[in-house]
Amino acid sequence: MIAVDWGGSSLRVYRLDAGGNVLEERRSALGVLACTEGFEQVLRQQIAGWDDTSIVMAGMIGSRQGWVEVPYVNCPATLSDIAAGMVEIRAPTLSDRQLWIVPGLLHRSESNSADVLRGEEAQLCGLMPRIGAARQIVCLPGTHSKWVVVEQGRIESFLTAMTGEVFDLLRRHSLLGRLMTEPGEDADHAAFFHGMARAQQPGGLLHHLFSVRTAGLLATLQPAQLASYLSGLLIAHELLGSEACAQVRGGTVHLIGAPALLEAYALALRRFDTNVQLHGELLAAAGVYVLARQRGLFA
Amino acid sequence: MIAVDWGGSSLRVYRLDAGGNVLEERRSALGVLACTEGFEQVLRQQIAGWDDTSIVMAGMIGSRQGWVEVPYVNCPATLSDIAAGMVEIRAPTLSDRQLWIVPGLLHRSESNSADVLRGEEAQLCGLMPRIGAARQIVCLPGTHSKWVVVEQGRIESFLTAMTGEVFDLLRRHSLLGRLMTEPGEDADHAAFFHGMARAQQPGGLLHHLFSVRTAGLLATLQPAQLASYLSGLLIAHELLGSEACAQVRGGTVHLIGAPALLEAYALALRRFDTNVQLHGELLAAAGVYVLARQRGLFA
Repeated sequence: MIAVDWGGSSLRVYRLDAGGNVLEERRSALGVLACTEGFEQVLRQQIAGWDDTSIVMAGMIGSRQGWVEVPYVNCPATLSDIAAGMVEIRAPTLSDRQLWIVPGLLHRSESNSADVLRGEEAQLCGLMPRIGAARQIVCLPGTHSKWVVVEQGRIESFLTAMTGEVFDLLRRHSLLGRLMTEPGEDADHAAFFHGMARAQQPGGLLHHLFSVRTAGLLATLQPAQLASYLSGLLIAHELLGSEACAQVRGGTVHLIGAPALLEAYALALRRFDTNVQLHGELLAAAGVYVLARQRGLFA
Repeated sequence: MIAVDWGGSSLRVYRLDAGGNVLEERRSALGVLACTEGFEQVLRQQIAGWDDTSIVMAGMIGSRQGWVEVPYVNCPATLSDIAAGMVEIRAPTLSDRQLWIVPGLLHRSESNSADVLRGEEAQLCGLMPRIGAARQIVCLPGTHSKWVVVEQGRIESFLTAMTGEVFDLLRRHSLLGRLMTEPGEDADHAAFFHGMARAQQPGGLLHHLFSVRTAGLLATLQPAQLASYLSGLLIAHELLGSEACAQVRGGTVHLIGAPALLEAYALALRRFDTNVQLHGELLAAAGVYVLARQRGLFA
C-alpha cells in the first residue's frame, strides 16, 4: 500500500510492504497550501512507478483547504473509531486505485472549549501499539504543538499550543527579531535555560517576551543568543501551560517529531525533571498502515 | 517653548505658552524609524515659523536608533532625577535654540530582570502633579503596554507587556489572521468578553491562542468577531500577568493613550471590577514642560 502524510507545507509518500515496513519514501514541498495545480495531479506524479492499489492519506489534505473535508472524529477515540471515520474518494485519473483519507480528531474539554488536530492522529496510531495500555503523555512539537493523553488504546484528550508559529512570527516580523543575529551552529544551552528560568517568574508571557528586547538593549545576552533564549522562554511557557505536562512531571513524555525540534523539547523536559522517549517521524506511515488494516483494506 | 514627542512611528510637536498650555500642535508620520534624511532637518521643517528658544524632546529620539543615545535613569525616579538626566545637544542649523532630550527609565526588579521605557516618562511626568501623592497604578496601553506604579512623586517601578505588537503580528501574519475578516464598525463586546473568559481558563496563552482557530473552524464565532475575541484574550492575559494590575483589582487604574485603545482597556478593567480614569495623550506635552521647568530652562 501507499501511505501519504500530506500536511500544509509538505507532502511525504511511503511505499509499504504487506507487513507495514517502509520500502521507499519520497518527500516534496508540495504541501496542501502550495498545491495550485490540483491534488490529483500532484499525487499521481508523486507516486509515479508505484502500482499499489491502496492509497491512504492523512493530514491537512482532509481539511476544508484540502481535497475533501473529512469530518472530525470525537475523542476519546480508538483506532477502530478513527478507521470508521475514514472516507473513500474518487479520482478519475487514478481509477484503478482505492483512495482514502483519514479523519482528524476533535476534543471538547470540560469547560466546553474545543481543540482539533489533523495529521498527528496518524503518528499516534503508529505509536499506540508500541507503548502498552497504561496512561501515557505524548507530545508532538511543531508549528502547532500537540499534547496528547493516550490510555487503553484510546486517544483520550489533547491540546494545542501555538509555540512554533509564535516563535517564527516573533523572529521574522517583530521588533525582537531585529535584535537577533543567526545563532551559531549549535543552539546555546545557557541562553535556552536562561529563557526557561524567565518563564517561571511572575508577569506572564506578554511581559516575558519583552525581556528579549531588554536583554539585547542592555547586552546581558549577545545577539546570537537571543533566538535560543526566546526558544527556551516559549517552550517553558508551553510546558507550564500544558496540564498534561504538569501531570507527567517526574514521569515520561513520548516525543514525536523531527530531530532538531525533539532535541530542544527533550532539553526542556529533562530540565523539568521529566524523562523523554524519542520517536521518529516514520510513525506516520506505521499509523496509516494500522488504520488501513483496521478498516479492512487488506487482510 | 516647544515640546517634542518623537517616537518610533510618529512625531508630534507642541508649542506651549509660559504656563505650559498647548497653543499649537502638529503631527507627522516621520517617526524615528522613518527618518532617512536626518533628524535635524526633519525637526527644522516641523517647527517652521515657531521661534521659541527651548526645544525639549522625549521618546525614541533619545535611543540608540535616535539622534543621541541618552542614558536611562534608574527607578525609583522623581521628576528631579529625570530632569537631571536630560542631555543638551547641538544642532548647527538650529544654533539659536537650546535643544534637550529627556532620558528613558530603567527598572530592575527584585529578581534582577530589567525593563525599560522611553517616551512614556513624559506622560507620567505630566500625570503625577495631577493625581496626588498616594500610591497609584498607571497603564499606558499600546504596541508595548506599560504598567507603572507611582507614589509620592516617584515613578517606583514598571513593566512592559508586548500585547499590541503580538496582536498585530497574529492578525497580519499568522494562520489565525487568515480566518479573520474586518470587524464591523463597532468592536464586538460579546466576542471580546468571550476572549477574556478564555484567558482565565487553564492552559496558558500559547494554548488559548489556538482557540481563535477552533472558533473559526467550528464556526462558534463569525469571521468578523475573531479580531475582538483575540483582543479580549490578549488584554485579559496582560491584565492577569501584571502584578501591578492584580494589586489594584477593585481599585482604580489611570489609563493614558489614544481613545480607541483606552476604550478596550477600560472595558476589560471594568470587567475585572476595576475603576478607570482616562487621560488624553496631551499629557506628554505637559510632562515635557514640567521637566523643562525643573531643569531650569526658564524661570
